[in-house]
Order: sequence, then C-alpha cells, then structure tokens
Amino acid sequence: MCAANADRDDAFFAVVPAGGSGTRLWPLSRAARPKFLLPLTGSETMLQATVSRLRPIASNERVYIVTGPAHVAEVARQVPGAPAEQIIVEPEPRGTGPAIGLAVALIAEQHPNAVVGSFAADHLVTDEPLFQLTIEAAIDVARQGYLVTVGIEPRHPETGYGYIEIGESLGSFDGVEAYRAASFKEKPDAATATSYVESGRFFWNASMFVWSASVFMEELDRYLPELAAALREIAADWVTPKGTSTLARLWPSIAPVTIDEGLFERSQRVAVVPGRFPWSDIGDWQALGEVAAQDELGNIIEASDVISLGAERNVIYGETRTIALVGVSDLVVVDTPDALLVCERSQAQRVREIVEQLRHRGSTDLI
Amino acid sequence: MCAANADRDDAFFAVVPAGGSGTRLWPLSRAARPKFLLPLTGSETMLQATVSRLRPIASNERVYIVTGPAHVAEVARQVPGAPAEQIIVEPEPRGTGPAIGLAVALIAEQHPNAVVGSFAADHLVTDEPLFQLTIEAAIDVARQGYLVTVGIEPRHPETGYGYIEIGESLGSFDGVEAYRAASFKEKPDAATATSYVESGRFFWNASMFVWSASVFMEELDRYLPELAAALREIAADWVTPKGTSTLARLWPSIAPVTIDEGLFERSQRVAVVPGRFPWSDIGDWQALGEVAAQDELGNIIEASDVISLGAERNVIYGETRTIALVGVSDLVVVDTPDALLVCERSQAQRVREIVEQLRHRGSTDLI
Repeated sequence: MCAANADRDDAFFAVVPAGGSGTRLWPLSRAARPKFLLPLTGSETMLQATVSRLRPIASNERVYIVTGPAHVAEVARQVPGAPAEQIIVEPEPRGTGPAIGLAVALIAEQHPNAVVGSFAADHLVTDEPLFQLTIEAAIDVARQGYLVTVGIEPRHPETGYGYIEIGESLGSFDGVEAYRAASFKEKPDAATATSYVESGRFFWNASMFVWSASVFMEELDRYLPELAAALREIAADWVTPKGTSTLARLWPSIAPVTIDEGLFERSQRVAVVPGRFPWSDIGDWQALGEVAAQDELGNIIEASDVISLGAERNVIYGETRTIALVGVSDLVVVDTPDALLVCERSQAQRVREIVEQLRHRGSTDLI
Repeated sequence: MCAANADRDDAFFAVVPAGGSGTRLWPLSRAARPKFLLPLTGSETMLQATVSRLRPIASNERVYIVTGPAHVAEVARQVPGAPAEQIIVEPEPRGTGPAIGLAVALIAEQHPNAVVGSFAADHLVTDEPLFQLTIEAAIDVARQGYLVTVGIEPRHPETGYGYIEIGESLGSFDGVEAYRAASFKEKPDAATATSYVESGRFFWNASMFVWSASVFMEELDRYLPELAAALREIAADWVTPKGTSTLARLWPSIAPVTIDEGLFERSQRVAVVPGRFPWSDIGDWQALGEVAAQDELGNIIEASDVISLGAERNVIYGETRTIALVGVSDLVVVDTPDALLVCERSQAQRVREIVEQLRHRGSTDLI
C-alpha cells in the first residue's frame, strides 16, 4: 500500500482547518484557547493529535493548517514541524468552503495532480491504524475522480449530526468498501435517527474529505464559480510580493459557505467511504465522556490529583488542585484557575448558556 | 429581667471552649483553620458569632475562651474585645471536662458566686432573642443549685446526637419551662430516635450548660475529685508567677473526660431547660445545608460569583472563582485555593474518609 507515497506526482497532502471556539467545552475552552489548542484526551492537544494521526500518510511537509490571526502563533508553536508558509491565516472566518478551498488552491497551484484530504483540527479518533487504512482507501477512490467523504459508522441514534446515505457500491479498496453518495440529511429527529442507524445505510457526516486537487477545483468552478475565481487569483499571487495584499483585498468579498452545503450536497461525483473507527467531534463534555478512556467505575479523569469515594461515570478535568469526589455520579466537573463548572452530564449542551450569560454581563476575561 | 446583670455578686460569665477540627467540613476546615475560626454562615466566624450571641447576657469582659496553642493567636485577633488573660491556652486536649473545668475554676477563684455558662465555639443558633431568653431562664434555674443543660427541641429523628430525657417539672422561669433530667441516652438507632421525637420528652444534648461556679466545683469534687484538685491548684496559682508552670506541670497528668460523661450523667442535681431555637452543631455539610439561608431553589450559596441553571438544593462554598452550576441537585461543592470537594449531600459524613486518605498519603498541606 503506497497510496500516499510522497515521491509520486499525485502525492497526498492534508489540510487541517483549525477554527471554531468550542463554547460548550467551557471553562476549559475559551475564545483565546479554543478546543483545537487544548489537550482534551491526553498529553497532545487536539491539533497535535490530528497532525500526529496523519503523519503515516502525510508527513509534516505535506500538511497545511488554516487558522485565524488570533491563534496562528500558538498553532505554529504546537506544530513546530509544519513549514511556516503552510500555516495559512484566513483574515476572518468565511466557513469551511473558503478556508479549505484556499489551501487546496494553493496546493493545486504547485502540485496539480495532488490528492488532498481535509481533517478538522478538533475531532477525536481512537483507532489510528484503522483510520489510516480508511484514508488510504479514500485516496484510491479520490484518484478515480470522486469527491470522497469518510462517513462515520453511527454508534447511536445521534440527533446532533448530519447523515450521509450511501448508494451504489464502488467496490472494495484494500478491504475498505466505497459507495456513491445517495443523499445528505440534516440533523434528524430521534425516530428518524434510529431508523437511519438500523438501516445500516446512513453514516455520520464528519466533514472528513479526500479529493484530487484538480477534481475539487473543477467542481468548485461548477458550483461556486465566484469562490473558485477568487481562490485561483489568490493562489496565483501567493508566492509573489502581491500575495498578502491579494488575499486581504479579495477575502472580505467572499461569501461564507460550508464545503458540505456548497459542494458535497450538490456535486454528482461524491463517494462515501465508511469510517468504522471510533470518532467524536467532542461537541460537549458529554460527547467527550463517550469516547475518552474510563476507569473501572466509568469515570473519565484528566486531572493531576483526584481522590474518589464511590464516584461513577463522571467526567473530571482539573489542573493543579486536588479534587475530592464523594458519592457523585454522571457529573461533569471542570476546574480551571478562574472558573469551575459542575454540570449534569445529560445537560452538557447547556454549558453554552453559561457562556452566553458571561458574555451578556461583560465577563470577557472568563470566555 | 436582669438575671445576667454584671453588677451583681452572682453575675453571669460565659465560657467558650474553642477546640475540635471539624474534619467533615473539609476542604474549608483544616487543622490550622478549624470550624470555629471559619465564617460558615455569614460574615462572622463561628467563634465571633458565638461571642456576639452572648453579648447581651455576657459582655466581652465576662467571656473566657479556652483553646489550643495552635489557634490562640487567631482567636485573640478574632475576638479583640476579650481580655487577653481570659483567653486560656490548654497545653494539650483533655476533653471538655478539663477545658471547661479550668475556666470555671479560674472564675470561681475570683467570683465565688458567679453563674457560668458554657457554649461551644462552633455551633449555630439562628433565633438569638429566643436563645438569650432561654439562657436567662437557665441562669435562674442554675441559681437554685442545679447543673442546667439546655436541651435542643429535636426537629427530626437525628441518630448522630445524644438525647436527654426530661423528668419532673421545676416550673416556669419567665415563660421558659424547666425540668429535672431523667436520663441521658447515647446516639440512638433510627426507630428509637423517632420514638424519642414523638414522645416530646427527649431533647438533643447540645453540650450547652449553665451552673453556679460553686455548685459546679462541689459536684466536681464529688464525681471527679482528682480533676477538681488539679484545677483548684492551677486556679490558686493562676495569677501568681507560678501560674504557667503549675498548669504545665499538672495538665499532662489530667485524665481526659467529657463534661457530659464525667459530670452530667452522674450528678443528681441536673436540670433541663428546653431550647426551642434553631440550632445545629454543623457536623457536616449536610447539617449546614439544613440550617443556612437558602435561595428560592433551595441552594445555600456562600460564594462570590455563582451562575446557576436549574440547580437545586446544593450547598456551595467558594472563594474568588466563578462557579457555574448546570442542572445539578443535592450536591455539596466546596472550592478552596488548593482543593475542591464535590459530594452528594446524603454522603456528607464520608468527607472524613477523604481527610483520612490525605493523611495516610502524607498530604499534610491539605488537611
């Protein structure tokens, strides 16, 4: 298996869009310290783990990271092996379409036959060999001219995600099956989600994509021609003295759009490769609790010093202080130097309301 | 009503034994910062509130505080109005018998006809006028030659307290009834406690006592003659140059004993005055939750900044940090600079096990 071989003309590049704040992971996640910059499930930050996970198929020299001005310095420090010119600053957020598209356009300018994958900087994958095998297969499918999305095998009838329905089989690639995409579905209600999971034909849309750079640009020309033109102009000037000013001039006029809505839900060339590795977008503390390593009583503990008496199924994040738990269950406890959260796991989505209250009262130091 | 009048030869003095660590109130309570030195229910510490509550019947000049060497400096600062020579340092703990007895012996030496009351430094009383009325009545009963204990009207069948059974009525004293004591009962089981409460003839033993100094010393001579002799010798030397050395010489040989077991459960001169004011020994966070002021959702909040979404019946203690609560109920959350406790209210007694674990592993800085 050498799909991602760096020596090929059609070598594999990885794009990592590093944006979003992760409001529901407050108080650990802050505007200045968003989810992708945090070590949520181990010693590496989410961004570092994303880059590490890609290394067997895309070494650092073939990784592009797209982030905002407020986070670029920290990104550069967290991923010292990434070439500085491949850490791209989008002047302001315009959604995943322009962010990922900019990186693809830059790669296409220098490597017209490259295959490119896009991987969010703040998602968790816990079976890395299976992840890599799956991406290798997706690369092979992409080389056949498809825009490939890796759909995650659903583990429960989640109502917070979009779903992708699979259609006709495209065969097996090194043991990994592939399908044409039949349809994209928005977040379903609980009954619909259950029927999706039971059918075996629906997968979670994890915004994990692979395509050849040329096919991507062709489809962008077809469905988002204004964006395609702007990105081509920026990419053409990128390595010239005009690079920065062209970006600054054109970016504000780019219309916000996601890759999903702008391209994948419209293109007729979309394939699905099922991802059967454990995955989470870690949308909130409850989601983290479902994928992180647990002790024998089901507690997820990322803290330096916890003493526990009969505590079960809690999600505990701490820094230097000693945390004592007595008889509590199904709680989220997040202990930071200036704020403490104690939350029922089942109500973890409401943490965003805390952040809204803090914003409303002007506690900008806490958000 | 002038029972406590300072101008009388038989004026009223208050003794406040300030000892005990309050292990179950960890992490707020520490060895160096025991319960009586903490502001648990307001701006005053428990010790300060105790002295304030006594002020209408025993002004500062007539208050004696007995404490240990580790806490005397803080006691002196917290109660600046108490005469320094009346803040008595017991060299090491010997139980309430010697501690209270020493203060009574010192008072008796200078004021043979004084009436003395003893009030723990770390109990909570929330109806101060009724408390004062009750103590005035107890003083009147004490002047008739009784060792008086103020028994607290039980509000629930508590199994953690001792009970006092009342016997023959001694009449009414300014509207407060008094009885001979019939028996003392150790901590009962739940069924027995229920029968006690329903009978109306049992009261909680709150270690709240009033007696005349001379009657106390007579009864001490009868039931604890060795202790009485030692205390008389210490008291005789107290204001002489030998005072300190006599205390240091005799104290180590004094046998530990409580006032309850050593005197009250044996004397034939014990009377009970029912205390119908709200009272708690604040033995643990759950007990505090039963007596402290609540918000409209039943939360007890002693913290500078709490944001709450649907949180009910929690006991929250914090210092400077922001504490966010989402959907949690019946928890104790205590936030200190070096330790955090999250505990089910119903399991508040187990907090002492946390302290034991910390001691066992050598975390002396945390206990």
